[in-house]
Amino acid sequence: MRLPPGLSSKDFSDALQEFEAAVGKQWVFTSDEDMDLYRDSYSPVWNEDDEPIPSAAVAPDGVEQVQAIVRAANKYKIPLWTISTGKNLGYGGSAPLLRGIVVLDLKRMNRVLEINDKNHYALLEPGVSYFDLYQYIHERQLNVWIDPPDPGWGSPMGNSLERGGGYTPMHDHFDAVCGLEVVLPSGEVMRTGMGALPGAKTWQQYKYGFGPYVTPIFSQSSLGIVTKIGIWLYPAPEAYFSGTVNVWKHRDLIPLIDVFGELQNAGIVRCGISLGSPFWLGAPHPEFDSMRASGSVKPLEDYAERKKMPYWSLPLSFYGPAKVVAAEWEYAKEKFSSIRGVAFEDGASYRFPLSDEDVARIRDTVPIGIPSLQIFSLLPPGSQGHIGFSPIIPMSGEAVLDAMAMFDRVHQELGSGRAALAVLGSFPRALVIIDLFPVERNVEHNRKMRELYRRLVQESAARGWGEYRTHTTFMGDISNTYSFNNHALRHFHETIKDAVDPNGILSPGKCGIWPKHLRKENA
Amino acid sequence: MRLPPGLSSKDFSDALQEFEAAVGKQWVFTSDEDMDLYRDSYSPVWNEDDEPIPSAAVAPDGVEQVQAIVRAANKYKIPLWTISTGKNLGYGGSAPLLRGIVVLDLKRMNRVLEINDKNHYALLEPGVSYFDLYQYIHERQLNVWIDPPDPGWGSPMGNSLERGGGYTPMHDHFDAVCGLEVVLPSGEVMRTGMGALPGAKTWQQYKYGFGPYVTPIFSQSSLGIVTKIGIWLYPAPEAYFSGTVNVWKHRDLIPLIDVFGELQNAGIVRCGISLGSPFWLGAPHPEFDSMRASGSVKPLEDYAERKKMPYWSLPLSFYGPAKVVAAEWEYAKEKFSSIRGVAFEDGASYRFPLSDEDVARIRDTVPIGIPSLQIFSLLPPGSQGHIGFSPIIPMSGEAVLDAMAMFDRVHQELGSGRAALAVLGSFPRALVIIDLFPVERNVEHNRKMRELYRRLVQESAARGWGEYRTHTTFMGDISNTYSFNNHALRHFHETIKDAVDPNGILSPGKCGIWPKHLRKENA
Repeated sequence: MRLPPGLSSKDFSDALQEFEAAVGKQWVFTSDEDMDLYRDSYSPVWNEDDEPIPSAAVAPDGVEQVQAIVRAANKYKIPLWTISTGKNLGYGGSAPLLRGIVVLDLKRMNRVLEINDKNHYALLEPGVSYFDLYQYIHERQLNVWIDPPDPGWGSPMGNSLERGGGYTPMHDHFDAVCGLEVVLPSGEVMRTGMGALPGAKTWQQYKYGFGPYVTPIFSQSSLGIVTKIGIWLYPAPEAYFSGTVNVWKHRDLIPLIDVFGELQNAGIVRCGISLGSPFWLGAPHPEFDSMRASGSVKPLEDYAERKKMPYWSLPLSFYGPAKVVAAEWEYAKEKFSSIRGVAFEDGASYRFPLSDEDVARIRDTVPIGIPSLQIFSLLPPGSQGHIGFSPIIPMSGEAVLDAMAMFDRVHQELGSGRAALAVLGSFPRALVIIDLFPVERNVEHNRKMRELYRRLVQESAARGWGEYRTHTTFMGDISNTYSFNNHALRHFHETIKDAVDPNGILSPGKCGIWPKHLRKENA
Repeated sequence: MRLPPGLSSKDFSDALQEFEAAVGKQWVFTSDEDMDLYRDSYSPVWNEDDEPIPSAAVAPDGVEQVQAIVRAANKYKIPLWTISTGKNLGYGGSAPLLRGIVVLDLKRMNRVLEINDKNHYALLEPGVSYFDLYQYIHERQLNVWIDPPDPGWGSPMGNSLERGGGYTPMHDHFDAVCGLEVVLPSGEVMRTGMGALPGAKTWQQYKYGFGPYVTPIFSQSSLGIVTKIGIWLYPAPEAYFSGTVNVWKHRDLIPLIDVFGELQNAGIVRCGISLGSPFWLGAPHPEFDSMRASGSVKPLEDYAERKKMPYWSLPLSFYGPAKVVAAEWEYAKEKFSSIRGVAFEDGASYRFPLSDEDVARIRDTVPIGIPSLQIFSLLPPGSQGHIGFSPIIPMSGEAVLDAMAMFDRVHQELGSGRAALAVLGSFPRALVIIDLFPVERNVEHNRKMRELYRRLVQESAARGWGEYRTHTTFMGDISNTYSFNNHALRHFHETIKDAVDPNGILSPGKCGIWPKHLRKENA
């Protein structure tokens, strides 16, 4: 049996007994078979000595059980790594960051506690998945939409707290969070925002409450265990319209992003985007790879012209009353018309509600708020998994071009054998560009990949770009780049961590923040 | 000379010398005349023994000077009360919460550090006022709007950090904050969000950074001194249109708010509102007061019908391309048409840019992003000041009616001699209803008023409504209502406060959070 770091086997078995007393014997797992299920199947350190396989997992079914576990963990100083559904593959999945610690698995707490379809919010437990939530709403024909991320198997709680994104007007998932219930490292239960007022009527309607607004320090965090989350939903719109803006030259990306940024900041375009290019974005194509490597974009532009294949494609989605949606697209077209040769393509157009038969005919339902797993069909055959390197870059075409050229150069220098496989997404006011790295169950491959990854971290930081989220393996690397004034922010994080979690029992190492007793050896 | 609590006059004069060494003799104030300028002219404890008149004020002109002051304050354990422009009258103005402490006045730090009119943001120092910022942008004809609150003399930093509101699509001011520079109680400088990355390119473009998102704990806060703030601006729109929705019966408010809430949550209406009613909202009218007191609304409804005076008026503003704005108003009218007898009134309609002459003819420029002081013209003649009791209430007409009836009843029971003077505003997804209390330079009047205020705090809390912001005099009262699970949130705030500010030098008592050494006596 693996042991948590620094723990005697006597203490560990006593602690497991207390966990069992709290949740029932059948919900404490320690066997190798069980632990295999908590391995990260996309791990970039698969089968290496430091692959973070847990020593145990415990699955409570309620807030009081979480409190009891936390109290026992404090007593024995056992670090817990909290997961909701553990489906954030590419970021660590259901595995902890540190080998031998205990996974606190909240999947059994999967109740939809409230859906308000007049004020448009949900109050959820950790283990509710996007599929669960959609199903709940769909069965009751409620007047609200959810905003699923690409694969819908994870939880709204996990994705929102990790600050993920989607495609509808609620695409900035953390921005939609309103009110938390948290079990603190002391075992005490706290409610944030208006929830701190007993019998609050606006817990899910007003975020801030009174005094320093603390909800956000529980995102990407090891400061508490969130047991309930309020999430704002989107009122089911009357209509959906999608249109694509196509441009033909390499540098057309610059005005394309400029116009998009202005439309987004003005609230005229409110969707999340995924920019397309047959040459630069999405699965790499050997023919284009060599053209990319040549240093000149002329062959690519010629190819685009010859094949009448747009060089860059920006798909936009509009949500709302049919007349408003039409006016928004019309205005967007006017603005994009400043780009020479721009071409517009009308895409899907729906009036809601759709019948189940209508929905069944739609290939990609994510932009209309219906979770799916269809994103996995885009993975190359034989794929064993991937992780993303995902810096936030400015809302500018220059930054995108610079990032892609840099990605390619680093790949070339380190001999990855391929061009960068980049995906471009959006947050309000900024872009995120993601280079997807295949992981394999092959130590040598993964070692090279990690080297490449770390090189990109450095090159990006040197440009003033930082990652918004990362795989557990690289959390320390990313944290190191946020070093302004001798790591003042990390010291501040550590000061709060030490005060709130003096025994360091929650998610050690999360986002580079270690509890005091593990800090030095992991710095 | 007044002294900070617990300080010897020797230590205080030594400390003042260190302040002088940091900022220059002429920027440390201690005379009674100078201290008079830091009294709260709307104080509800004017001239009483505990009126919080400071012992001194110090006005630095840069981050290093702020650091030097903070270090000296730590050395002598002198509490500092930070203000930017000190114009938040009704909430404490430029006075501290505690008598005898030192005001840290940041008005000299008034530089507009950056305006980006492509990505639409500002980077500002504390002392920049809304007027300053507007002037800066207007002179350079930049493509951005600001969102001023009612009176424009305060600072975007102060108003945003106190979580104030305005009227344009950026009306939730704290929501527009992106990236801070903070001098911590230790004297150390920290940057939040992407600013923690040296040379960051997206400090004002992406809020969250990496790891626990800490920016929001510096709002309504005593955890640091914010020296730079990033604020998202609105791209100057093509057009503005305002329309008013008028309804005629008391209970029409219920569907009116329901439709408004849905339009707002859908992003179709994106303005802040100020609901009107000749009977219930705004300056009270003696004739209507007695009708209100009768307990029946029939006389008011009859009056409205007879005088063809709308019972409730909801003014909406639309911002954006002319075609979109028109489609939004058209759709809104369709939705409100479900209310029997509803009448629509087209209001101001502008295409931008306006000439200075055009602007000079507009009575209320605040909704088009031009700061003014015209709100003061609404005050009754002879007004000596006011403070607001402002609970957040649910987005529902029932809650508004309940609040107004409760306000009236409490006023009647405590013999205020008037009906409640209520103003109704909006945040995303929630309403705020404000009862404005006149303050006078009269101890007896103010004593009664405080009793009334505290009674409303209790009655509101009993309904599950909490205040979003309050005058320094009542911060403890409001904090006491956020008491879920034996004040778990306040204990959490205190834990962080003690860790970050062990000497308790920053803004003691702010929002009910006291440093350890002052906690017991003020609890």
